Amino acid sequence: MPLPIKHLTSTKQLSRDDTDAILQVAAEMEEVVEKGGSEMLKGKILAALFYEPSTRTRLSFESAMHRLGGSAVSAVGMQFSSLYKGETIEDTIQVIGQYTDIICMRHPDQGSADTAAGVSPVPFINAGDGPGQHPTQALLDIFTIQKECDKLDGIHITMVGDLKFGRTVHSLSFLLGLYKDVKFTLVSPKELVMPEKVTSFFDERNISYVQTEHLEEGLDADILYMTRVQQERFKDSAEFERLKLKYVLNAKHLKGKKITVMHPLPRIGEIATDVDALPTAAYFREARNGIAVRMALLAMLLGKA
Amino acid sequence: MPLPIKHLTSTKQLSRDDTDAILQVAAEMEEVVEKGGSEMLKGKILAALFYEPSTRTRLSFESAMHRLGGSAVSAVGMQFSSLYKGETIEDTIQVIGQYTDIICMRHPDQGSADTAAGVSPVPFINAGDGPGQHPTQALLDIFTIQKECDKLDGIHITMVGDLKFGRTVHSLSFLLGLYKDVKFTLVSPKELVMPEKVTSFFDERNISYVQTEHLEEGLDADILYMTRVQQERFKDSAEFERLKLKYVLNAKHLKGKKITVMHPLPRIGEIATDVDALPTAAYFREARNGIAVRMALLAMLLGKA
Amino acid sequence: MPLPIKHLTSTKQLSRDDTDAILQVAAEMEEVVEKGGSEMLKGKILAALFYEPSTRTRLSFESAMHRLGGSAVSAVGMQFSSLYKGETIEDTIQVIGQYTDIICMRHPDQGSADTAAGVSPVPFINAGDGPGQHPTQALLDIFTIQKECDKLDGIHITMVGDLKFGRTVHSLSFLLGLYKDVKFTLVSPKELVMPEKVTSFFDERNISYVQTEHLEEGLDADILYMTRVQQERFKDSAEFERLKLKYVLNAKHLKGKKITVMHPLPRIGEIATDVDALPTAAYFREARNGIAVRMALLAMLLGKA
Repeated sequence: MPLPIKHLTSTKQLSRDDTDAILQVAAEMEEVVEKGGSEMLKGKILAALFYEPSTRTRLSFESAMHRLGGSAVSAVGMQFSSLYKGETIEDTIQVIGQYTDIICMRHPDQGSADTAAGVSPVPFINAGDGPGQHPTQALLDIFTIQKECDKLDGIHITMVGDLKFGRTVHSLSFLLGLYKDVKFTLVSPKELVMPEKVTSFFDERNISYVQTEHLEEGLDADILYMTRVQQERFKDSAEFERLKLKYVLNAKHLKGKKITVMHPLPRIGEIATDVDALPTAAYFREARNGIAVRMALLAMLLGKA
Repeated sequence: MPLPIKHLTSTKQLSRDDTDAILQVAAEMEEVVEKGGSEMLKGKILAALFYEPSTRTRLSFESAMHRLGGSAVSAVGMQFSSLYKGETIEDTIQVIGQYTDIICMRHPDQGSADTAAGVSPVPFINAGDGPGQHPTQALLDIFTIQKECDKLDGIHITMVGDLKFGRTVHSLSFLLGLYKDVKFTLVSPKELVMPEKVTSFFDERNISYVQTEHLEEGLDADILYMTRVQQERFKDSAEFERLKLKYVLNAKHLKGKKITVMHPLPRIGEIATDVDALPTAAYFREARNGIAVRMALLAMLLGKA
Repeated sequence: MPLPIKHLTSTKQLSRDDTDAILQVAAEMEEVVEKGGSEMLKGKILAALFYEPSTRTRLSFESAMHRLGGSAVSAVGMQFSSLYKGETIEDTIQVIGQYTDIICMRHPDQGSADTAAGVSPVPFINAGDGPGQHPTQALLDIFTIQKECDKLDGIHITMVGDLKFGRTVHSLSFLLGLYKDVKFTLVSPKELVMPEKVTSFFDERNISYVQTEHLEEGLDADILYMTRVQQERFKDSAEFERLKLKYVLNAKHLKGKKITVMHPLPRIGEIATDVDALPTAAYFREARNGIAVRMALLAMLLGKA
């Protein structure tokens, strides 16, 4: 089931059929992991280029590659800035694409993923380009929703926290928008409301959404998608301090509720640890689902699934 | 021969039978290496999380995993501090445990290993937690003693250097204390004597030990265990400078002696290089033994040996 | 076809026959890559020790190892300087040689490769020692020349840029000097002319060379070997700024020319991107050739090819 794309830089490239295909292969990949891995990508090499560190995402990609019998080579952080000062992303990608079979890249600059994909001689996956896209996170989120709720059409999701700068909530919104009768409750401080680029997308597609400042108004949905407020998006650190823990979910909020709690992680306090033991706390399962989704993408983009 | 523990954070968890079992499997693992490796851990992934760098220990764990056909993913140093500031060890371990099959961790804070093991969904090995424990070092030391001297019961060991802060001599003392008729000669400056937690353990078990400031008084034992004085344990750098090379072993000391020389490495001058060529200089063999011991632990904790 | 050397630290160790043998095995390795890799080095472990970062070279070595079914463990940059301050290269190599089957090392100090090779218990490859040698680069360059021009005897090569400090042009000159009727055109500013150690080698062997400041005088050769001016070699940054882009090759220069353009990369502007699309632009193919050459060396030094 090869995807009709060579590179994945944004969830906007994906149709509903594409997304469903990825979710189906991801489900198969869970069985592969269960059985101890496969050799589907034996002999293939993934290059993980992380211009900014994201240990979690990098280890997830590398682990996904290993689960399929492939290898990984990685470069993180400082080594890029020092010696390679002056080399363009285009050159780096054109060289690394001579060594390896597929590349994933994390980069602090929005648009860098498109630049890279434009010249890559091998399949390329965006692992986050600054405030831009992070498509594999959105795909693992939607895979998690489907697994937890057994459906995507008709889902009601509450998104909480920094909806203005939160890359993951934007990517996820666009992707969920491919499904029918999806409802959004958007909980944020006034300073951090969902930007117009997303709400206008909702309006165009007649997607129903409610905006509120009160977490309590979002607790009767199917999914509660918590996010952290990211310091690096704020110029004013006093404003960050004031807003960072405006919403702190704890077990009391969830008493008698069936809502599934998700979070892209890392959390820095916005979900109290007393939530962890609840069966509806899905955020560590969500992290696990990233492996299956990335296995699916690696295999599909390499024409092996 | 599965161990009766899921995680290894301290040598204090190990009985003599456990230790003997590990040493026996390690001996088998040496044959595996001799034959070019095995596929015992094929499909398994080790996560090596090094909050502080220890290239030596990390590469030893990764190499051990590769020798058994497994894969490794790693994270070192700075990337943890920068982006993940604010994430707890518990969360990191719970996420990485979703990706991989076994975790080893090095962390500067004493007790961090127990914190991690307390939540880890997969087997966990402490690769050193600050001034706390470093159990795989103690196990490879005892494996080396057994190989070099063909016995553990009745061994006489001289420990030299920083016995106060030296994590490895503490772990090794507790482990050797499981064996019969072991004798210790403890050579250190007054400022760096073996702490009460170890000497009281000796007293409780009626283990014979002598304390001295003179290296020459320890040269008739079976094992001479040299250690370096670690700068990071000193607040006063003048004191460090004064003590760091109080004991410098050279070939002349060893003339006519049969004592086996060990050192956890790195050394910074406390063994002169003219010792290296002596057949009794065992410190590089000691490093090699770390591979077999870590192979044994990885295989046993994963239920494969 | 085992090489008559255990370690490779300099191209000066290689005879013409040795070089031809490496090129022949490299050609075979290209077919191995084409077929999806092999298991020739299954169970073998490469240690990549990079005391200074060189992502490109490191990933090339690691990828070469993976293409042959082997594993790689790596250490980069800061972790060496911090904790291991005070440990000698000799000790590090003697320990890492206990864990792995072959070592490649990049180090900022000239001569460090010979120091390491002198004590290494396993085969050792110099991956660049400061202003010293970088033999695998020279070998991949000569492999590229042979592939692009179908010959080495009688080749005419123009070298451009920093010929004084440029490690790669020195190594390549010595290696090409093994072949017959080779001609050199040396284009550089007066401040950066080819050093006497290379020109006296040319003189001894009656190798024909011309020195000029004008790029245009070198465009009728078979090979145009461009190099960048490396900031780290200059004490005076004003001088660096003045010289760094003295020669900028663009597509106009090459109109009607058959000359093959090479560059060890990274470039920082000395080849305009409008050259990239020309069929004679060989620098990305050159990078690719590094994989085959390093596969050949790994296999030969491990006695497997």
